[in-house]
Amino acid sequence: MFPTAGAVSRESVSGAAAVAIDVLRATTTIAAALMSGASAVEPFLEPDHARARRAAMGPSAPLLGGERHSVLIPGFDLGNSPLEYTPEAVAGKTVLLTTTNGTRCIHAAADAHVLYTAAFVNAGTTAAALAAAGRDVVICCAGTRERFSLEDTACAGALVDRLLELHPDAAVDDLGRTARLLYRHYAGRLADVFADSEHGRSLLELGLAADLAYCARLDSVPVLAQYAEGRIRRVA
Amino acid sequence: MFPTAGAVSRESVSGAAAVAIDVLRATTTIAAALMSGASAVEPFLEPDHARARRAAMGPSAPLLGGERHSVLIPGFDLGNSPLEYTPEAVAGKTVLLTTTNGTRCIHAAADAHVLYTAAFVNAGTTAAALAAAGRDVVICCAGTRERFSLEDTACAGALVDRLLELHPDAAVDDLGRTARLLYRHYAGRLADVFADSEHGRSLLELGLAADLAYCARLDSVPVLAQYAEGRIRRVA
Repeated sequence: MFPTAGAVSRESVSGAAAVAIDVLRATTTIAAALMSGASAVEPFLEPDHARARRAAMGPSAPLLGGERHSVLIPGFDLGNSPLEYTPEAVAGKTVLLTTTNGTRCIHAAADAHVLYTAAFVNAGTTAAALAAAGRDVVICCAGTRERFSLEDTACAGALVDRLLELHPDAAVDDLGRTARLLYRHYAGRLADVFADSEHGRSLLELGLAADLAYCARLDSVPVLAQYAEGRIRRVA
Repeated sequence: MFPTAGAVSRESVSGAAAVAIDVLRATTTIAAALMSGASAVEPFLEPDHARARRAAMGPSAPLLGGERHSVLIPGFDLGNSPLEYTPEAVAGKTVLLTTTNGTRCIHAAADAHVLYTAAFVNAGTTAAALAAAGRDVVICCAGTRERFSLEDTACAGALVDRLLELHPDAAVDDLGRTARLLYRHYAGRLADVFADSEHGRSLLELGLAADLAYCARLDSVPVLAQYAEGRIRRVA
């Protein structure tokens, strides 16, 4: 398990079943978009990369979504709030997404044998898929600007908790063990993770309490989101 | 707070009261050496740097100590076990120490306004000094080969726990909060930290159970170990 996107290397995910986590808010928003019927979410490191991709896609008219400093990017269609990704907004469409930490984490883990994106809202679905993969599992937290994040680590802990229920004899590294302890500390009251976390408090100060309430609902958006060849799609 | 030596930057410790932690075993051994009357411990990144320093010191005959892959370095006087650093071995002498993770962490944090080294054995003494410094506190865990370490993080949590007793309104970052939770989980049974940790288990397999028992004794070696100008000395 890795605490930040910058700690993830190609070698570390090679051959593994990996998962990228950015609870606030990229991977929650990805789950919401796919649940609302978006055909795919394509993650980009920079707004200009997303703009160039849209220009290249021509008449299929994808949506541009994401944030910088937690707010909408000029000229973009959607921000990084999962509440914006309604069926009316995204059904049948491709979303080109760029965020500060989450899309970096997805790109860092892109060479895994299989890569999912997860948040609290789809933790159980993702843990079941990871357990079924029959491979080493590598959990990659995005973190916040290369610093350890309470919410991403707690979400990783939710995955470890489920994985150990399914495979009680699995070996868990020091960070995975700590993550599980953190998750269990907050289990049943996940909104408190955000109240206690640096990034959660900064979003609260921006008036995003409704977003946080959405992000705290464990297993409320049971989609399995898989990254492959530049696209995140909902898989069965 | 930082989880590994590689995460520590000059800027991050600038102006701060910092502490470097490598519980297994560098900072425990430093406390033991100073408690046994060593006049100073000088940390070096590489064995050859320590050898060159000894050659330059001439007749004062410092001791060479440390490890690579947890074992004695050829030609060195002492390994990295705190049990070797008895008064008979080190009293009145300078120890030139090089270890895999701990000395890197000390060097990474060397630009702090004040820098201590701490382990479980001198956590309380160090926390009191950090609290008295009247500055932001930056806790730098060595980690193990750039990976998160259960025992260093738990020791950081012991410091956070004491600091919050002394300054209840202090702001704590996400990793510090997690560290405190980890420490509280293991409080009163710190040997279990090592039984659960990757590095602890590897030392147990090397037959170093007596070292681990020493390293687990909270506040048993109440020395304040301060780094300044290349030397770690015991201060009042």
